[in-house]
Amino acid sequence: MNESFAPANADFEAAVRASFAQQGVMQLIGAEMVAVKPGACRIRMPFSERVSQQHGLFHGGLIATVADSAGGYAAMTLCPAGTEVLTVEYKVNFLAPAKGSEVVAIGRVIKPGRTLIVCSVDVDVLSNGVATRCAMVQQTMMAIAPRG
Amino acid sequence: MNESFAPANADFEAAVRASFAQQGVMQLIGAEMVAVKPGACRIRMPFSERVSQQHGLFHGGLIATVADSAGGYAAMTLCPAGTEVLTVEYKVNFLAPAKGSEVVAIGRVIKPGRTLIVCSVDVDVLSNGVATRCAMVQQTMMAIAPRG
Amino acid sequence: MNESFAPANADFEAAVRASFAQQGVMQLIGAEMVAVKPGACRIRMPFSERVSQQHGLFHGGLIATVADSAGGYAAMTLCPAGTEVLTVEYKVNFLAPAKGSEVVAIGRVIKPGRTLIVCSVDVDVLSNGVATRCAMVQQTMMAIAPRG
Amino acid sequence: MNESFAPANADFEAAVRASFAQQGVMQLIGAEMVAVKPGACRIRMPFSERVSQQHGLFHGGLIATVADSAGGYAAMTLCPAGTEVLTVEYKVNFLAPAKGSEVVAIGRVIKPGRTLIVCSVDVDVLSNGVATRCAMVQQTMMAIAPRG
Repeated sequence: MNESFAPANADFEAAVRASFAQQGVMQLIGAEMVAVKPGACRIRMPFSERVSQQHGLFHGGLIATVADSAGGYAAMTLCPAGTEVLTVEYKVNFLAPAKGSEVVAIGRVIKPGRTLIVCSVDVDVLSNGVATRCAMVQQTMMAIAPRG
Repeated sequence: MNESFAPANADFEAAVRASFAQQGVMQLIGAEMVAVKPGACRIRMPFSERVSQQHGLFHGGLIATVADSAGGYAAMTLCPAGTEVLTVEYKVNFLAPAKGSEVVAIGRVIKPGRTLIVCSVDVDVLSNGVATRCAMVQQTMMAIAPRG
Repeated sequence: MNESFAPANADFEAAVRASFAQQGVMQLIGAEMVAVKPGACRIRMPFSERVSQQHGLFHGGLIATVADSAGGYAAMTLCPAGTEVLTVEYKVNFLAPAKGSEVVAIGRVIKPGRTLIVCSVDVDVLSNGVATRCAMVQQTMMAIAPRG
Repeated sequence: MNESFAPANADFEAAVRASFAQQGVMQLIGAEMVAVKPGACRIRMPFSERVSQQHGLFHGGLIATVADSAGGYAAMTLCPAGTEVLTVEYKVNFLAPAKGSEVVAIGRVIKPGRTLIVCSVDVDVLSNGVATRCAMVQQTMMAIAPRG
């Protein structure tokens, strides 16, 4: 993962992990934050019935949800303490059927900014040890400074 | 909802509802298909802890998931019997904090096609009887004909 | 066009038209601002060799360029005097071959905001008096306040 | 550029360059195809009055137009002889003001397919020898087989 960014908050990892822990839906779908670095975040979601669609594949909406979180938390790593991040918008392309034991989303900041942060997220599905790119996301996040 | 399209499958509603019922994730998040018409589909998701994010709002990823389904099933209403639909890509803008008792996604086919179907989805959040647009989606679906 | 928005700048039309007149590329491609209302803007581009692609249709990139301008100026109509608008991002779907005598892009503000403004743009191609939707755009604009 | 793809058409470069030469708009804006490889294409556009917007920067719409072409021709390099490619949709984020002497768009195929091809395009602006990423694009192309 890209580690060339200098975080504004020395405790960025604790802030990111605390926020992630409060997202009920992440527990619901069994998602887990694997790694957090300045400007990057990796989240995995193992396969289960609850995250499947009608053909037994990972549901595309949840793949995008995990990707959105990976990008959003990548953005948050570069924000000052107390800053929240909101998703302004994202666009996802689904590249291959998501059949496998888990998906891994890697979010990376492409362009940091004081107000807007643009991220890119790659999502791989793992099957028998082979990773296949199954989705890619281009995302805009907004930083909301803490109220004085 | 737009009812100007002529469905190729007289039993489109049964086909759409059967597919929806097989999506484990829709039950997981409590989503319900409210209406299905030629070229349109409406899905609602009531608020619950499981669909919330860290601030007690609806989680954006799940809003997009419901919107993706509403658009995808709107597309499926116009497909011949036995056809499956896949999401090629979508783009979502989040327009307002999704705070309320339920969200309602209305998917509409904008451009039907034999292979690709382009849809638009509006998502409202309802709070004390007032609807606020909280997301909009532009989506491309692909029709997969049944194997001969 | 949507006229339900109240402009913050009484001279919004003059400001918008002055900015449009400074875009060399709009003259280059023969684009013309047809109408400007609060929250909406309409731009037309007549067919010419210079705006065509290899099959004699309107070039998709220029259709998107005109759409981007129509959305951007729709956003600018709602901004205070002196404010500039920048395109953060947009997404375009091409819906039909753009064959005809002119294209007309109608930009509308969907969600105004102090910093970000979300717009939707429909583009029609006119051929023998018949309008066909050839593209649709979902766009995020950013308002840049004048420097104090 | 990525050269790991095997082209289906040995004469892909001639096919791509012939198509590019027929796009009137590319000459109009002074765009030039710098390089074509299997799965990749690079196009540059030097600065001129005609490609500027109201602040003397490169016009965003034309940056996207060049990016769309770079991605589209990257897709075409992998198609069988006689195949045309159409842009289904793209999404562009503008990352920095495009101020400089030229922009360079590098299109790459991320996911080839028989019908749909997904590409990613990075656009840099060059100023005094320094390249700054000014836009990124995620794009879906459709291959249209020649008529039998």
